[in-house]
Amino acid sequence: MSKELTSRAEDYSQWYNDLVIKGGLADYSAVRGCMVIKPYGFALWENMRDQLDKMFKETGHVNAYFPLFIPKSFLSKEAAHVEGFAKECAVVTHYRLMNDPNGKGIVVDPDAKLEEELIVRPTSETIIWHSYKDWIQSYRDLPLLINQWANVVRWEMRTRLFLRTAEFLWQEGHTAHATKEEAIEETKKMLDVYAEFVETYMAVPVIKGVKTASERFAGAEDTYCIEAMMQDGKALQAGTSHFLGQNFAKAFDVQFLTKENKQEYVWATSWGVSTRLIGALIMAHSDDQGLILPPKIAPQQVVIVPIYKGEESKAPIDAKANEIMASLKVKGIRVKYDNNDNSRPGWKFAQHELQGVPVRIAMGLRDLENKVVEVARRDTKEKNSMSLDGLADNISNLLEEIQQNIYNKALAFRTEHITTADNWDDFVKLLDGKGGFISAHWDGTAETEEKIKEQTKATIRCIPLNNKQEAGVCILTGKPSTQRVLFARAY
Amino acid sequence: MSKELTSRAEDYSQWYNDLVIKGGLADYSAVRGCMVIKPYGFALWENMRDQLDKMFKETGHVNAYFPLFIPKSFLSKEAAHVEGFAKECAVVTHYRLMNDPNGKGIVVDPDAKLEEELIVRPTSETIIWHSYKDWIQSYRDLPLLINQWANVVRWEMRTRLFLRTAEFLWQEGHTAHATKEEAIEETKKMLDVYAEFVETYMAVPVIKGVKTASERFAGAEDTYCIEAMMQDGKALQAGTSHFLGQNFAKAFDVQFLTKENKQEYVWATSWGVSTRLIGALIMAHSDDQGLILPPKIAPQQVVIVPIYKGEESKAPIDAKANEIMASLKVKGIRVKYDNNDNSRPGWKFAQHELQGVPVRIAMGLRDLENKVVEVARRDTKEKNSMSLDGLADNISNLLEEIQQNIYNKALAFRTEHITTADNWDDFVKLLDGKGGFISAHWDGTAETEEKIKEQTKATIRCIPLNNKQEAGVCILTGKPSTQRVLFARAY
Repeated sequence: MSKELTSRAEDYSQWYNDLVIKGGLADYSAVRGCMVIKPYGFALWENMRDQLDKMFKETGHVNAYFPLFIPKSFLSKEAAHVEGFAKECAVVTHYRLMNDPNGKGIVVDPDAKLEEELIVRPTSETIIWHSYKDWIQSYRDLPLLINQWANVVRWEMRTRLFLRTAEFLWQEGHTAHATKEEAIEETKKMLDVYAEFVETYMAVPVIKGVKTASERFAGAEDTYCIEAMMQDGKALQAGTSHFLGQNFAKAFDVQFLTKENKQEYVWATSWGVSTRLIGALIMAHSDDQGLILPPKIAPQQVVIVPIYKGEESKAPIDAKANEIMASLKVKGIRVKYDNNDNSRPGWKFAQHELQGVPVRIAMGLRDLENKVVEVARRDTKEKNSMSLDGLADNISNLLEEIQQNIYNKALAFRTEHITTADNWDDFVKLLDGKGGFISAHWDGTAETEEKIKEQTKATIRCIPLNNKQEAGVCILTGKPSTQRVLFARAY
Repeated sequence: MSKELTSRAEDYSQWYNDLVIKGGLADYSAVRGCMVIKPYGFALWENMRDQLDKMFKETGHVNAYFPLFIPKSFLSKEAAHVEGFAKECAVVTHYRLMNDPNGKGIVVDPDAKLEEELIVRPTSETIIWHSYKDWIQSYRDLPLLINQWANVVRWEMRTRLFLRTAEFLWQEGHTAHATKEEAIEETKKMLDVYAEFVETYMAVPVIKGVKTASERFAGAEDTYCIEAMMQDGKALQAGTSHFLGQNFAKAFDVQFLTKENKQEYVWATSWGVSTRLIGALIMAHSDDQGLILPPKIAPQQVVIVPIYKGEESKAPIDAKANEIMASLKVKGIRVKYDNNDNSRPGWKFAQHELQGVPVRIAMGLRDLENKVVEVARRDTKEKNSMSLDGLADNISNLLEEIQQNIYNKALAFRTEHITTADNWDDFVKLLDGKGGFISAHWDGTAETEEKIKEQTKATIRCIPLNNKQEAGVCILTGKPSTQRVLFARAY
């Protein structure tokens, strides 16, 4: 069967790729590093996006749209931003094509060279703060709480579907505030929104923390993050929220008149999550048979498969299936009736398993006579006969149970994979063996952090929020330390 | 008052620009020809997009996402497509920046030149049909009914906010079918969806028709369109739906196995509407005081303004306003309480008028004593006292009445501005005077069409669907003609 997946044990990385492609989530494209998000993958993204968008609006944010292109000179305006960030970009240099004078297709018109090159946005702080200069004059214009859903491009050399692609979809919030305190509060609030979304909807537990100076966003004073654990023991940064201080306000000269009639620079935040979350979702939950999707964001929550021989037995099953569909839809359940005659039930079962539909209902004539259906849940693969009486309520409860179970399983795995290391040998052994987060002391210097990374490929994922303070010694240098931080190899 | 608009009579074009900018819909950006869609404009677009998306899904379509970039060679694959279309594009030639060796900011890294240039999509037929080749093998894979919401770039020399910008947002549907009949049916179905959306939600009447050969989309066999009439008597193409025949299937070699076991080329359609629709909306309805927005897509449908002096009178008004808000929200009405203390009621009234909020409710202490509020409708500027009893129902009805009234007014204007011309003098006089659509005979040749355009700047907007057949003579050449077509100057 061509749909068969490489197992996780055999080759985790190939398993992931198989799953994305055979599961119909995404595909490679003709452009190096750019993916096509296929309808099933996009339906998943729509559910994630719509829920996040709702949460942004509930916290007072509005959407807007800023240009795709950024004048090259803008990137140099904030020194740290350009240094840490802006090199691997798609650069637009011309604005016209022409017929090849030698008759070989089309060529770039050499006369249509731009005076200043345009960069396809890798992130939009600069172009947005350029606008904010016009929009912000007084404290009355603050706070400005704007989000944008957009495509961005970063010219990555090694790409993987969803996890690292040259073009990806994301949202980027860019807010402006009158005070430092308010901006920091916003930064943390959005981190909480991300954590709530990823845990409650994606069923992936995350650790909230702050990045070390070397892992900060280029131009930020502080980068907060949520870190998730994948089934191969590697970490994945699932979202970041940056306190930008007055860096971009100063770079773009955005000042405002305070209530006290003074001119002051504005305080800023930015925060984003991307289609990378889909990669996290896949790797956190799925198994060797295919995707396991949390009901809250699954494109289809329930699929009904009729089991019949011959047309005459199909009619009563169709009728009952439509009844069940209607009763599920009333409860807001996304349900599909897979009555395609071209494929057999066994093939359909495998397909729905591959695509991670949380609940499968199978029903034949005999089931109907007995007033039952067969209900299979994707997460545990348990099958049960369920009475038609109260079916919609029971399915609704089952979906909640599945959501919770998927989360619990991921949480147990993560708890199991946070390990303390108190010396270098243990640290290296853990990384190469069990994997996961390693909680260890570090002397607080960028030098040591860099050495550890060079020697082990492990990075400091974060300093957890409300971290316990305790005296210890750095696992590499033996110098004194006041707290443990979380190390891991990461995506 | 800085919010004052240029009047339509004084300078229609300036009136439009004032409205877009002062109404907070969009702004110029730092990049030539690219606009910023501001939160109020984007909220409008979201309402339009969400409704269209719903209608696409109800007609069986799914969303996906294809790359922003198109390899240059793809554009040459369909001969008519490249000829008619692909010249004014943003071209990506490099993928990296570097620090200027002379220390002056950053420069393009000359070593990072792409082997093949990438074009920022002006439309996505080519990149999508490249994928379809992999996705379509058999009749079982058809039809493929995919839509994409995306940004596209066309390097326009003269730009106007919303109407013609280098970058704009749109949706593009790209469908694949087993038969010609089915593809044509799809093309017409989507034209109907567009017409229904624009008429029912945007309250803009449209004429459905088909383009002449010279006005066809590059690569299409037939381009269907909906044409709207603006208040200055110019036409605006509000949406197009293309029957592409087998042109793209042949260019990208997309064949499928029929039920009869034969290999055949796939039939295609594409269809799109863009943020240009916002321009149409503004110009169809608004007046010298500001926007007039149809309730069905207005970001806010109702605004409540409290009228009070001193804090003690504010509390009971607040309480009643919250009650009214709740009762309106229950009915799904988008309502805002404008209780900002920083501005006076008169300023707020002008602001809401400028931004086209369909219904304004003003309430002071004396109103509450009398158990009434003052209700002002934006479209007619009528003000009425309305009882608090049954207010929510009455407001709900009023919103429907406003929606209908705005449509009726636009329809009356359009009806008034379709004029028959039977000779050249009348034709030119009408164009320079009354404007609007001119229904006239044309000899059916591209040469004549081009001459008329050169001499008058008028184009054939469309040959209306189900057009009456009648014998006549061409207004320019006097040659025989079998039907009238609609001419106009257009945006």
